Amino acid sequence: MNILLKEIRHNPLLWLLAFVPAVFIGEKLKPQAHAVLFVLTLLAIVPLAALLSHATESVAARTGDAVGGLLNATLGNLTELVIALTALRAGQHMLVKASIVGAIVTNSLFMLGASFFLGGMKFHVQEFNRVSARLQACLLFLAAVALLVPSALVQADAQKGAAMLQSLSLGLAVLLIVAYALGMFFSLKTHRELFAGAGHGEAGEAGEAGEAGEAGEAGEAPWPIGLALATLGGVTVLVALVSEVFVESVQHAAETFGMTPAFVGFIVVALVGAAAEMASAFSAARKNRLDLSVGIALGSASQIALFVAPVLMLLSYFLGPAPMDLQFWPGAVVMILIATLTAALVTNGGRSAWFVGVLLIMVYLVFAMTLYLLPPGTQ
Amino acid sequence: MNILLKEIRHNPLLWLLAFVPAVFIGEKLKPQAHAVLFVLTLLAIVPLAALLSHATESVAARTGDAVGGLLNATLGNLTELVIALTALRAGQHMLVKASIVGAIVTNSLFMLGASFFLGGMKFHVQEFNRVSARLQACLLFLAAVALLVPSALVQADAQKGAAMLQSLSLGLAVLLIVAYALGMFFSLKTHRELFAGAGHGEAGEAGEAGEAGEAGEAGEAPWPIGLALATLGGVTVLVALVSEVFVESVQHAAETFGMTPAFVGFIVVALVGAAAEMASAFSAARKNRLDLSVGIALGSASQIALFVAPVLMLLSYFLGPAPMDLQFWPGAVVMILIATLTAALVTNGGRSAWFVGVLLIMVYLVFAMTLYLLPPGTQ
Amino acid sequence: MNILLKEIRHNPLLWLLAFVPAVFIGEKLKPQAHAVLFVLTLLAIVPLAALLSHATESVAARTGDAVGGLLNATLGNLTELVIALTALRAGQHMLVKASIVGAIVTNSLFMLGASFFLGGMKFHVQEFNRVSARLQACLLFLAAVALLVPSALVQADAQKGAAMLQSLSLGLAVLLIVAYALGMFFSLKTHRELFAGAGHGEAGEAGEAGEAGEAGEAGEAPWPIGLALATLGGVTVLVALVSEVFVESVQHAAETFGMTPAFVGFIVVALVGAAAEMASAFSAARKNRLDLSVGIALGSASQIALFVAPVLMLLSYFLGPAPMDLQFWPGAVVMILIATLTAALVTNGGRSAWFVGVLLIMVYLVFAMTLYLLPPGTQ
Repeated sequence: MNILLKEIRHNPLLWLLAFVPAVFIGEKLKPQAHAVLFVLTLLAIVPLAALLSHATESVAARTGDAVGGLLNATLGNLTELVIALTALRAGQHMLVKASIVGAIVTNSLFMLGASFFLGGMKFHVQEFNRVSARLQACLLFLAAVALLVPSALVQADAQKGAAMLQSLSLGLAVLLIVAYALGMFFSLKTHRELFAGAGHGEAGEAGEAGEAGEAGEAGEAPWPIGLALATLGGVTVLVALVSEVFVESVQHAAETFGMTPAFVGFIVVALVGAAAEMASAFSAARKNRLDLSVGIALGSASQIALFVAPVLMLLSYFLGPAPMDLQFWPGAVVMILIATLTAALVTNGGRSAWFVGVLLIMVYLVFAMTLYLLPPGTQ
Repeated sequence: MNILLKEIRHNPLLWLLAFVPAVFIGEKLKPQAHAVLFVLTLLAIVPLAALLSHATESVAARTGDAVGGLLNATLGNLTELVIALTALRAGQHMLVKASIVGAIVTNSLFMLGASFFLGGMKFHVQEFNRVSARLQACLLFLAAVALLVPSALVQADAQKGAAMLQSLSLGLAVLLIVAYALGMFFSLKTHRELFAGAGHGEAGEAGEAGEAGEAGEAGEAPWPIGLALATLGGVTVLVALVSEVFVESVQHAAETFGMTPAFVGFIVVALVGAAAEMASAFSAARKNRLDLSVGIALGSASQIALFVAPVLMLLSYFLGPAPMDLQFWPGAVVMILIATLTAALVTNGGRSAWFVGVLLIMVYLVFAMTLYLLPPGTQ
Repeated sequence: MNILLKEIRHNPLLWLLAFVPAVFIGEKLKPQAHAVLFVLTLLAIVPLAALLSHATESVAARTGDAVGGLLNATLGNLTELVIALTALRAGQHMLVKASIVGAIVTNSLFMLGASFFLGGMKFHVQEFNRVSARLQACLLFLAAVALLVPSALVQADAQKGAAMLQSLSLGLAVLLIVAYALGMFFSLKTHRELFAGAGHGEAGEAGEAGEAGEAGEAGEAPWPIGLALATLGGVTVLVALVSEVFVESVQHAAETFGMTPAFVGFIVVALVGAAAEMASAFSAARKNRLDLSVGIALGSASQIALFVAPVLMLLSYFLGPAPMDLQFWPGAVVMILIATLTAALVTNGGRSAWFVGVLLIMVYLVFAMTLYLLPPGTQ
């Protein structure tokens, strides 16, 4: 517990934890002040995400790389998962899908781009393991195809189409999870030597925690397992409670701020949910450990596309009012496809300079700008 | 003749030849038993395709690489061509187009992917000539563009549109054949040294027969030219007769088995038609001769896209009730484009491991699953 | 002035200058003879474009590479800009957009392809700086995304949509110009060593003029600065006057010749406007200076996409009856995207042979053929 307090004292990001009780007090006193509650929940989720991410790393650092990778898959994107589950229980499939697409696009464009840019500001040319980047890009491409083909082949107007869409979504969900599992098996077991330094990247934050531990940096040292597990449990409950307020307030707040729901779902939620991972990725880029940045950014994106999204779809059968399908509206599929192609194009060479980051951020800005200006009716 | 019998004795695949007479007997006795006839024709076409492929190799092995390549272009996909011609004469343009798209997608995703996977089960990492793979991928890309642009630019609702579509299809057909011929000239004549071991790949099965002959493997030794030509003629007639029964029974059979026509056209016909080539490609992959596998898979796909499809379109002016155009429905164009992009993406590096094969097969499964579940009305 | 006359005597292309007075005489005497005027303006624009291009080179050769690059950006595509401005003032947004898309597609497919083909006829295999080609391809890709996403996300049927489209176009225009400026800064300043020989390519015709001057080739030696500036001013006025006749006559003439307006806008105007740059690119390719050819072709395409198009859009607020947006019809966006992908695919390896050129030209022919046959109503 001392370690936890010490960490909170040293990490200014964690001071935002003060907003967690503020959310619950606010919700009791003024349940109709949606705009205020919305801002409070945003501010409260950021430090909780950071704690969650650190606790996950600490647990993963205890295990081997294979189990660590699996842990990362299940826990690394926990914030996104909890927010999405809350929205799922409320039957808000639209918000769930928007946050999935937003997380994929934000991770593979903004997080990767900002890493390249920040790293490029300090180093003239940076190199990274392109085998690892290619694997992640290929996995993302598979996910994009899995989401694109149904939309292209199906005009689900008839009732028959809807039933068929549900079966197809089930099949695709299983297929994506299998592909993800085989990809982990490939990169962590049978061909791990190809992923050299990138093995850590694939294992995401676990690897970072491990390396950081070796480097002896106080702020990122792994916690004792008991503390880590307790934090994991406690913070998950807190995130779940805060998310509930967030999901309730988000639509009203969007109207108040003049933001389209699409913009909130894609951009705001995605940036908040990934805040902690971004801090890790950016700091790694500035230490010239671009393998790690690419691993976090693309690894996280492919985790969401091939693991979190299908799992949410499967869970929708048990939670919430109606099962969710995997059909995304055309604009979302186009964004995922473009994000994937862009990431594949720029990571192909295994080298980076600041302008590569600018290009990625520009593509992200095109999306953000379009979503911000989108008339509320159309999505 | 002895050689032929000896080969049939040694090759279990050829024992299926017993189903050829069964088709004709069945058609005489029970012309209404569509489901049974459908299964019988499937089983009969596989060994005929194998014989045809072997006879073609034997003829091609006698000639130089340039003529051999041309022979392969005209004869290598003979099974598909005969099935398509039968459907063309029956005016079933839908089935013709489905089998063209199915053959392209099956060859460039499933055949390539299974070769990578089977080869990767035995060898840790395999290398192949990427120049050859890139040429084939570029040719496929050109074909995909030639099929995509008309669909994207034309809304052929008016009568004017239909007439224009026919002229455009004629122009595109000529253009694709010219591109294919120039591509052969480039890889077999002016720049053959770039295609080193892949020259065999490009020459497809011809190359394999030649190499196998050197290696002295009894089962794959080239036949005497007389036997080869006689087999070529006789088997072509048999395939034509069996195909006629197949085309008649396929639609009724699909209903009986609860399969959509799209699934039958794309997946079942394509897998059957390419059975023999697959056997060659898989065996080459397991002998670590991946150049040959890639050559057969992508070479066959580009042959169909740039040679078989345009030739069928041109022949439709002389055969069948009405000329066929080259406009494919959007879903088909999307599948060709994705198959091409996927093949280009994974062959770009010139190296392969088992997971690359898994990725290709997964993309294929996404297509197959969607087509299997597609409501019969929509295509 | 002597130099100018001497150059005109030595360069047969410039003899076409005789058609410039012919245009004005024709317009006075027979303002209704649209078809004749159209042909005369085409013939008059070609030599004016050549003079303009040479004058720009001469000015750019005086300055450093950084300023030279900027000069090329503003002046290199001056012919296209003046034609487009004239059309903009006449409120013909359709023609402006067609000429923008046509210039991008023609430069990145036909000019690049013909350079590869002509170079490949003389040299077996040619190499070029792939870093530079990749940067241009990435910039083009960004522009394609910026034009694609709005069309994919917006169904601008409502009035709200139209207002939103205008704001979005403004935002995208600023974004593209910033990206272009940063790209220049990157390739000419911070990372110029990566663009080695390609630095000349990026600087386009400036580089060529500089090198040609060193080589002492009389026909391409830079002019004295006074002559260059005077020519620049005088010829710009002439191009503007001729363009006015051109824009007036183009629609009537298209009908007379049975060409669709789309074909005229995309293909004829683009080929005419780029005539002079093509002469430079082809001659460089045949001198085995492929870096320069690629630089002119792709550099010019990205200039138009990221600089000329947004500037035209911004200028439409001050010139012409109504502001122009950046929404292109779907077929145009597909063409830009395919042209970009094709250019990225074939320049990826940094090597070229004649067949690569054939492939690019074939893709261009697919577009040209489709546009030629397009029924006049649809675009």
